[in-house]
Amino acid sequence: MHGIGEGVPRKDAWEKVTGQAEYVSDLALPGMLSARIVRSPYAHAWIRGIKTDAARSVAGVVAVVTADDLVGIDPFYGAAFKDQPILAMGRVRYEGEPVVAVVASDEWAAEAGAQAVEVDYEPLPAVLSLDAALAPGAVLVHEEQLRPAGHFHDLSDLAGRQGNIVHDFHFRRGQEPDAIFARPGVTVFEDTVTYPMVHHAALEPYACLADWQGGELTVHTSTQTPFTVRQELAEIFSLALSRVRVVVPYVGGAFGGKCYTKIEPLAVALSRHCGAPVQLCLSSAEAFRTARKPSARVRVRTGVRSDGTIVARHVEVHYVLGAYADVGPRVTQKAGYVALGPYRVPNARIDAYGVYTNTVPAVAFRGYGVPQLVLGYELQTERMADALGLDPQELRRRNLLRPGERYSPDDAPVDANLKQDLEQAAGADWAAVLDEPHTGRGIAISLKSTGAPFVSHAVVRLRADGSATLLASTVEIGQGARTVLPQIVSTALDIPVDQVRMLEPDTAVTPYDQATSSSRSTTLSGLACQRAANDVKEQLREIAGRAWGIDPTQVTVAAGGLAHGERTMTYAEAVRAKFGMNGGEIVGKGSYVGEVGDMPLKGITPFWETGAASVAVRVDPETGEVTVLKARSVADVGKAIHPDLVRGQDEGGLVMGFGHALYEEMAYADGQLVNGNLIDYRVPGFGDVPDSLETVIVENQDGPGPMGAKGVGEGSTTVAAAAIAAAVYRATGVVLGDLPLTPEKIWRAMLGVKARETLREAVQEEVGRIGS
Amino acid sequence: MHGIGEGVPRKDAWEKVTGQAEYVSDLALPGMLSARIVRSPYAHAWIRGIKTDAARSVAGVVAVVTADDLVGIDPFYGAAFKDQPILAMGRVRYEGEPVVAVVASDEWAAEAGAQAVEVDYEPLPAVLSLDAALAPGAVLVHEEQLRPAGHFHDLSDLAGRQGNIVHDFHFRRGQEPDAIFARPGVTVFEDTVTYPMVHHAALEPYACLADWQGGELTVHTSTQTPFTVRQELAEIFSLALSRVRVVVPYVGGAFGGKCYTKIEPLAVALSRHCGAPVQLCLSSAEAFRTARKPSARVRVRTGVRSDGTIVARHVEVHYVLGAYADVGPRVTQKAGYVALGPYRVPNARIDAYGVYTNTVPAVAFRGYGVPQLVLGYELQTERMADALGLDPQELRRRNLLRPGERYSPDDAPVDANLKQDLEQAAGADWAAVLDEPHTGRGIAISLKSTGAPFVSHAVVRLRADGSATLLASTVEIGQGARTVLPQIVSTALDIPVDQVRMLEPDTAVTPYDQATSSSRSTTLSGLACQRAANDVKEQLREIAGRAWGIDPTQVTVAAGGLAHGERTMTYAEAVRAKFGMNGGEIVGKGSYVGEVGDMPLKGITPFWETGAASVAVRVDPETGEVTVLKARSVADVGKAIHPDLVRGQDEGGLVMGFGHALYEEMAYADGQLVNGNLIDYRVPGFGDVPDSLETVIVENQDGPGPMGAKGVGEGSTTVAAAAIAAAVYRATGVVLGDLPLTPEKIWRAMLGVKARETLREAVQEEVGRIGS
Repeated sequence: MHGIGEGVPRKDAWEKVTGQAEYVSDLALPGMLSARIVRSPYAHAWIRGIKTDAARSVAGVVAVVTADDLVGIDPFYGAAFKDQPILAMGRVRYEGEPVVAVVASDEWAAEAGAQAVEVDYEPLPAVLSLDAALAPGAVLVHEEQLRPAGHFHDLSDLAGRQGNIVHDFHFRRGQEPDAIFARPGVTVFEDTVTYPMVHHAALEPYACLADWQGGELTVHTSTQTPFTVRQELAEIFSLALSRVRVVVPYVGGAFGGKCYTKIEPLAVALSRHCGAPVQLCLSSAEAFRTARKPSARVRVRTGVRSDGTIVARHVEVHYVLGAYADVGPRVTQKAGYVALGPYRVPNARIDAYGVYTNTVPAVAFRGYGVPQLVLGYELQTERMADALGLDPQELRRRNLLRPGERYSPDDAPVDANLKQDLEQAAGADWAAVLDEPHTGRGIAISLKSTGAPFVSHAVVRLRADGSATLLASTVEIGQGARTVLPQIVSTALDIPVDQVRMLEPDTAVTPYDQATSSSRSTTLSGLACQRAANDVKEQLREIAGRAWGIDPTQVTVAAGGLAHGERTMTYAEAVRAKFGMNGGEIVGKGSYVGEVGDMPLKGITPFWETGAASVAVRVDPETGEVTVLKARSVADVGKAIHPDLVRGQDEGGLVMGFGHALYEEMAYADGQLVNGNLIDYRVPGFGDVPDSLETVIVENQDGPGPMGAKGVGEGSTTVAAAAIAAAVYRATGVVLGDLPLTPEKIWRAMLGVKARETLREAVQEEVGRIGS
Repeated sequence: MHGIGEGVPRKDAWEKVTGQAEYVSDLALPGMLSARIVRSPYAHAWIRGIKTDAARSVAGVVAVVTADDLVGIDPFYGAAFKDQPILAMGRVRYEGEPVVAVVASDEWAAEAGAQAVEVDYEPLPAVLSLDAALAPGAVLVHEEQLRPAGHFHDLSDLAGRQGNIVHDFHFRRGQEPDAIFARPGVTVFEDTVTYPMVHHAALEPYACLADWQGGELTVHTSTQTPFTVRQELAEIFSLALSRVRVVVPYVGGAFGGKCYTKIEPLAVALSRHCGAPVQLCLSSAEAFRTARKPSARVRVRTGVRSDGTIVARHVEVHYVLGAYADVGPRVTQKAGYVALGPYRVPNARIDAYGVYTNTVPAVAFRGYGVPQLVLGYELQTERMADALGLDPQELRRRNLLRPGERYSPDDAPVDANLKQDLEQAAGADWAAVLDEPHTGRGIAISLKSTGAPFVSHAVVRLRADGSATLLASTVEIGQGARTVLPQIVSTALDIPVDQVRMLEPDTAVTPYDQATSSSRSTTLSGLACQRAANDVKEQLREIAGRAWGIDPTQVTVAAGGLAHGERTMTYAEAVRAKFGMNGGEIVGKGSYVGEVGDMPLKGITPFWETGAASVAVRVDPETGEVTVLKARSVADVGKAIHPDLVRGQDEGGLVMGFGHALYEEMAYADGQLVNGNLIDYRVPGFGDVPDSLETVIVENQDGPGPMGAKGVGEGSTTVAAAAIAAAVYRATGVVLGDLPLTPEKIWRAMLGVKARETLREAVQEEVGRIGS
């Protein structure tokens, strides 16, 4: 009836497969106009002039808007710092930055108008790499004073900022690692890996439909954070929050790329300027020029004793954040915090930096900065085990945090059994695959904290016929929220799941929810939903208790009805009893406010998300091409409310990580993104999925969510690339941490190994000859 | 800041005057189709056959739908009895009844298709008048067993039904009036009046946009009762309530005509049939064939003592309900109940009947059956006063119920000062008008109960910046609900009214509200809104109390903030304190459940609405044409939250009643409605408004609503026609209660008076001659 642990059909499946599901680009409003954007062809340039006359004379063009037209508003936005202009103001900072917007009666006219705009640029030197950005005397991407956005209070300290470093985060525990490294009996390993710029590649690019009407604003947009978008639009346009309505229909994939404000301020500014609804739908190529994952360089230095015990670790990570900060400083801080991995590290130092460059802004991305780190520390784990003559799993087991142990003293205890996760990932039955030549298996394990504070509210409305409506602001981004959250409510109320209807998020009507992100919805929004349903149940008990003249606590709730001894009452009868009519409803409220007991939780992770995966690859010795033969991932979810959806999330996250490991990289040449489209940019296809792809679900009911649930969807992404790199190392002997592991890179590295072997053999032969 | 007693700009004014306000006919959905209806040209006929081939071949036509196509659903609807087919099934019962619907790509193609449908009818004898319907052996409009709709439990007793009488209501108090009438010293007066069939003539006719998607249904419709429409659609189409979403944008006038289900079942059936959204927008001419006010014949017999004290009254009223019952049985019952008027009547009998005829179905209409009765008893009051040689006001004063006195022992005490209302209506300063020849002044006073039980819920959401959103399901039908309810919330929270945004009703998201009708919204929905705001305040007090370590009751709330001694906290700071972030919200709930104390109120009027008006007319002695010279109406509202809106409601209601008194009547000839359009049917225009039109607002804070408010908007309509008829009597000496008082009727009646006077003069002259 509720499908807990079994699954029910996805609520959105029918609509999606029949093409009836509505996305922002399907919407239309009377008198709606369309907009197209003129973007910068330079990575860094002054804007010397803009000629708009020709564009204005194109048939159907209503307005040609530049930054000069954005009057009476705050023209900057940004999740961490308000550093990003709605339209470029005098200067462009990356290739693809919006400079001019053309609004017209339809998108073809807008495109024709955009083609007719002439912008006069004076190119400037650009910083395009991490090294260039950090070099002494480097060109500064931003020279102005940064203005904190207010969304994250803990990022407003700008003390550490210098040069192109926009934010830095530091963590220390125990003694300085360098001191420990120098001690006798400690072997030190140092590895540096790089994780490439990659794009989210959601099937639906960014789309927004803004309707500015006399000081009231309605925005239909494809976002994971409707309330944050509302907040920022209210600030930009000086509106009360209650006058800004953000509605989110189906979202065609997000992966973190639709967190925080993106194209909404521009769409709203255009609607305000034109006095009509304006729809702004980007192409995939434009999405590539809107957001990407933070690329990173990670340097891990670890001191171990000969038995494999980690005694000290220093991690230095630079996240390359591109031209505007977006939420990159938060990624720097949150991911930096867990850079030590799932291990017990008594003496530690972490230095994390977020760095501006003249590239596409980096934003949140599934895994939130952690996959970059796991690549560093887990590739090193494999290398350390070999050097120490230990089994890599044994080395991991010796150092893994135990259930209930704390990553840091002020944080919540680890609510997962990492050894169990590791054993499940490693498992048996790999021999058949690994018997083949040129094969190898890699394993990786990770720990990721969940963002906090994290507020969610929910309302459950029990209708007069006993069916229910769930109001919660979790966005259906393809993860199945509109299926799972109704399951939780239907279980709490004990009514069939198809009697619970969940609505689309609409900040005006559905209750506050901080974000659909951080694998939090089932667990934390789910708690709010469960509590709202329980509130309804308590009210029903009171109605029956009053009707029967007994204490409400004596009333039992089961099978969609109320009972006490022989007496029973359906929910519908209870509603009728309360209101004396065939109408009315019972409204239940529930909240999760990040609380421990009665007080809000400050900066403590509400739950820990783990990743553990094992992959086997074959590397073609002639070409260096990698084929993934078999993969097993562990989804340690506490309780799988909908196992098929858990598997879908876990498998998707794993294969996405394979893409980063093997194929994907946003390629720049002279500051131009040269493969920023879905033809030249290669994401994994079904042909890249291994024949054997398995998710093992671990259910220890150890999460804080409904029925002991924890989040899922990012864990496998955090370990995918690290496991691939480890497998390539096992198959070839090559330690390669510079993703993506293209055939060429592997082939060249193997050639190097081969050359060294040939040289060693030659030397030994020569030494032998001399000795003889 | 809140504009209480002063007024604030209407929330909807700007949108409406600039044409940006959206009504159902302005909406569009992707793939939307349009529908037109083929209607019966006969008042009563068998349908012998329907040819649809030609219609199907019209370009753009998608479907031609008859009753035979409505499979798998319950094809009947109706507020009191499910007697009305979605499309005629074998038989039509009034001219204009829907028989076939044509769905096409646009409304012109649909109209062309509708023109091409051929229906073969066999005409039947029809009952077109009350007398014909009540005659022995009359043709029966309905022969089938009536099926109660379940919406009104107290109407399901069908015992009284016989012939064409669909429902009867009886009320008795004290002794049988006939016995009292026979006593010495009692003078008996008998009057019979008739109130015509009139149409609501809302500027917006009926419109509905239905979107059936895989068992989930969204309906945008112009209704006063979204939750009742939802209930009935759920029943017809066998859907859980939570799967039916009824959304109501602006409504362009309603006047009761948009209560309960109207064209929605047909629009939904067409969407379901075609698998696409279908918009059905009626023309004004079709609106005339959809609903009207119950016409009535009222017979009032009253026994009075010589000092004017009423000792007994018998009222017999027949409401002519047309071809389908709609809510007519409820009107029969609720209006019948108050047929004794605002007077103390120790011995009383009321017999009220609702009668089927082959005419347009009669539905709720501003005043809900009461204006028909007031015409009867107040015209009689004037006549009685003259016959007894008393001042009519003195006669009224002797019999009016006092504040706190009960209309009937089981009902709530009268919460109005009727004598004060009467004095205010009569007032002074009429001499100048009445000094002219052929003028007269008429006064009328009334009492109307409010429907019960009446449930309303509201939710107030305080945003993180201290602004608020109000979720309530009161429909903005032009009465100003979206202005007044935010005023109530802004007052309770003590924040500026422009910081409170109220949303459109949407059964999926805004909380249950029984109806926007019966002048109830400010008073009863207003209570729910006020309570929701107070709930927010209590939560704010708790936050501040915890932060300051004091009892929450010690925290004062004022000027949008919290205070204790020197310490203060804005609402925004309180939200931040609760959630530890720049987000979250405080959700407050409020309900009005018709309660007295803790128990639901059953059938007791929550408040009494009074009407009192005085009008002066001039009657042209040559033509009988009436000109209204001056009018004064009393709005006894307890507290005028927005005086301009009170005046607008009161003046509009009065002038609407003038139309019924003087101009309006749906004219039938041979069963055909011959003036069913806004050209031939005459509603009052601005030229008909008297030069002096005044509303006196009486504020005794004696209502149950916020700040002592009571409802407004129907009182003046209940007395308008009676006051006009009384004024015509005063101006001409003619007692005419057969509305409308057309020049021809008055002229003929005056001619009769003149003839009688001439005859009397002649007789007196002759007698004198004989005597001399």
